[in-house]
Amino acid sequence: MATARLWKDDEVTKNPRVKAVFDDIRTTRKMDFVNNFWRTLANQPAVLERTWASVKEIMFAPGVLDPLTKELIYIAVSATNACTYCAHSHTAAARAKGMTDEQYAELIAIIGLANETNALASALQIPVDKEFDVL
Amino acid sequence: MATARLWKDDEVTKNPRVKAVFDDIRTTRKMDFVNNFWRTLANQPAVLERTWASVKEIMFAPGVLDPLTKELIYIAVSATNACTYCAHSHTAAARAKGMTDEQYAELIAIIGLANETNALASALQIPVDKEFDVL
Amino acid sequence: MATARLWKDDEVTKNPRVKAVFDDIRTTRKMDFVNNFWRTLANQPAVLERTWASVKEIMFAPGVLDPLTKELIYIAVSATNACTYCAHSHTAAARAKGMTDEQYAELIAIIGLANETNALASALQIPVDKEFDVL
Amino acid sequence: MATARLWKDDEVTKNPRVKAVFDDIRTTRKMDFVNNFWRTLANQPAVLERTWASVKEIMFAPGVLDPLTKELIYIAVSATNACTYCAHSHTAAARAKGMTDEQYAELIAIIGLANETNALASALQIPVDKEFDVL
Amino acid sequence: MATARLWKDDEVTKNPRVKAVFDDIRTTRKMDFVNNFWRTLANQPAVLERTWASVKEIMFAPGVLDPLTKELIYIAVSATNACTYCAHSHTAAARAKGMTDEQYAELIAIIGLANETNALASALQIPVDKEFDVL
Amino acid sequence: MATARLWKDDEVTKNPRVKAVFDDIRTTRKMDFVNNFWRTLANQPAVLERTWASVKEIMFAPGVLDPLTKELIYIAVSATNACTYCAHSHTAAARAKGMTDEQYAELIAIIGLANETNALASALQIPVDKEFDVL
Repeated sequence: MATARLWKDDEVTKNPRVKAVFDDIRTTRKMDFVNNFWRTLANQPAVLERTWASVKEIMFAPGVLDPLTKELIYIAVSATNACTYCAHSHTAAARAKGMTDEQYAELIAIIGLANETNALASALQIPVDKEFDVL
Repeated sequence: MATARLWKDDEVTKNPRVKAVFDDIRTTRKMDFVNNFWRTLANQPAVLERTWASVKEIMFAPGVLDPLTKELIYIAVSATNACTYCAHSHTAAARAKGMTDEQYAELIAIIGLANETNALASALQIPVDKEFDVL
Repeated sequence: MATARLWKDDEVTKNPRVKAVFDDIRTTRKMDFVNNFWRTLANQPAVLERTWASVKEIMFAPGVLDPLTKELIYIAVSATNACTYCAHSHTAAARAKGMTDEQYAELIAIIGLANETNALASALQIPVDKEFDVL
Repeated sequence: MATARLWKDDEVTKNPRVKAVFDDIRTTRKMDFVNNFWRTLANQPAVLERTWASVKEIMFAPGVLDPLTKELIYIAVSATNACTYCAHSHTAAARAKGMTDEQYAELIAIIGLANETNALASALQIPVDKEFDVL
Repeated sequence: MATARLWKDDEVTKNPRVKAVFDDIRTTRKMDFVNNFWRTLANQPAVLERTWASVKEIMFAPGVLDPLTKELIYIAVSATNACTYCAHSHTAAARAKGMTDEQYAELIAIIGLANETNALASALQIPVDKEFDVL
Repeated sequence: MATARLWKDDEVTKNPRVKAVFDDIRTTRKMDFVNNFWRTLANQPAVLERTWASVKEIMFAPGVLDPLTKELIYIAVSATNACTYCAHSHTAAARAKGMTDEQYAELIAIIGLANETNALASALQIPVDKEFDVL
């Protein structure tokens, strides 16, 4: 089930704005497979263009965090938001970028612990130590 | 403001269970400063002991993810949960473990992007690609 | 799958409290179709009555916000909460009330942006400007 | 700081709709103190009336769950939503209804554990066992 | 769909660490059925051991909150986090521990109300009354 | 308190990337006041540039949703995420764009209701009606 239609490749080919993004996704990721996230955003070309531009710049451009670390962070956010699609897609992406079972096990442990201690701090409304302030 | 009292050091000293945890926190982290999170959990010794045991094992024991990467993941969860205390404490912890301004800038960008695309996927209820299934 | 049973029409007819609400839903919405949300709440008649009374007053009574705007706001909350059922039902409701593809595209963009900047503000724990205070 | 004004008692007295709710709050709770939640909702009399009616029926009317258990559940939701105001107000309410330190300690432990295992389940996207389905 | 494999019993039997936890789960819960949560965590033995130890101590050890109350609190957190798996598993657990339809109806009402008033308080950014502060 | 420094105007003036964004914010919004959100993002110029570009395109470019409706949607997301900063800043923005007390009262009511029914749907794990599927 879904709240918006998925674009098949023959439909993509007929829309220049959407095709340009799909071509760039395929070139940048060096694979022909384009997942449903982009096939759904195709319904909103402006959102598709802007979202891909952000993903390309943040996740694919060279930076100081390595590509796998970026995916681990993405999984942590997705799990915390209970995002079914993103948990699946970014876990697959992390594995494709070399995430080992040991790394995944430690990631899972941190995600669980952080959500636990976040809830403890929110329940107890603990005042922030002045040592943590940067102002 | 807070919903539970903070324990001062003289009170900690008088409670053997709490003192044992505080001593181990100081030894493990190699510093005398014990932040308000632990001073609040001191009201619930069993929670204090179990939480510190988890933090020590997950965040301090040697593993395949380095200590700084673990803190970046922790910040990502804390920001997503809007946890005021944890955002402050783990950003301070990440800086203490060497997080540079460039690393923090990339982390912030990923946290923003992941929350954005999570919301897009949840709004559009995008069906998970069969390619992402491991079963 | 579900954690509570769905009531079929013949069962509804036999329970006066549930029937009265279902009748009012059909009259107010001018359609025979009653969706699973109400068929599940039928298990808890008091919750059913109170929830429908709130929905009728807030979403159907004349007010200063038009019915479509109300649905756009509802979708935004549902996406942010990752509520699968509500994202589906309120997107369908918005379309039934005339939401165009262009309006949906702009809504989606705002939902994504707001979740992104919320996460940035929560990560950075930005102090509220005194200009925004009304007290 | 706040995004809406707080109503003082002299202002409440001049508005019959608001005064009627405040009078009922004082009578029902058997105390003169009316907290800021209601003083803020006073700006929206319809929301004030409906919210108080729900709180009165759900939290104060006799039922099968005792008043303290209801507050424990309320705290659990409030902590999970990182609601600063509600964590404070419902922890105070639970203490006023007799919550002991031991009960609070167990509540805190469950809140932490549930948020931890929720995050694990959402990260791992664990398929629901057929044994848990009621349909 | 899932992001991690489920362990069948013959696989569990071959791994001493996993087998020890599964044996203890069966003994503690007095039933042969082991649900998918544990069959997925089996991929991460350290997480499995630590999580089960916490669940056993918090949910099964004698305490001041009765076992059913603990499950009601767990359901409240799981619903608030929109955790599909946990809503299913803990509702089933609560029913197994004797939750009646009346108790479930009241629980559902409180979960709805608490999420509503949490959102109102967060929208209005209501300042915490000094009467609620314990410091 | 905060986890990152706020940039004052004299510091902004010395950094061409940051100054260009601040100049565009002032021109686009037709006011000299630049709020703390941007003064904090100034620490991460790439995030500042990309975020402002998105805000300018989504919130300020002409579209099919009027500027006030966009702010109402923004407030709804911010309240649901319990984002203190964003609830304050976007409520102030909505008022500056003409939000009346009546509109705000209806918005608040919808935010509360949507969070309530989202929680009910997530607790009850209601199956999506086939009528709501677009695939």
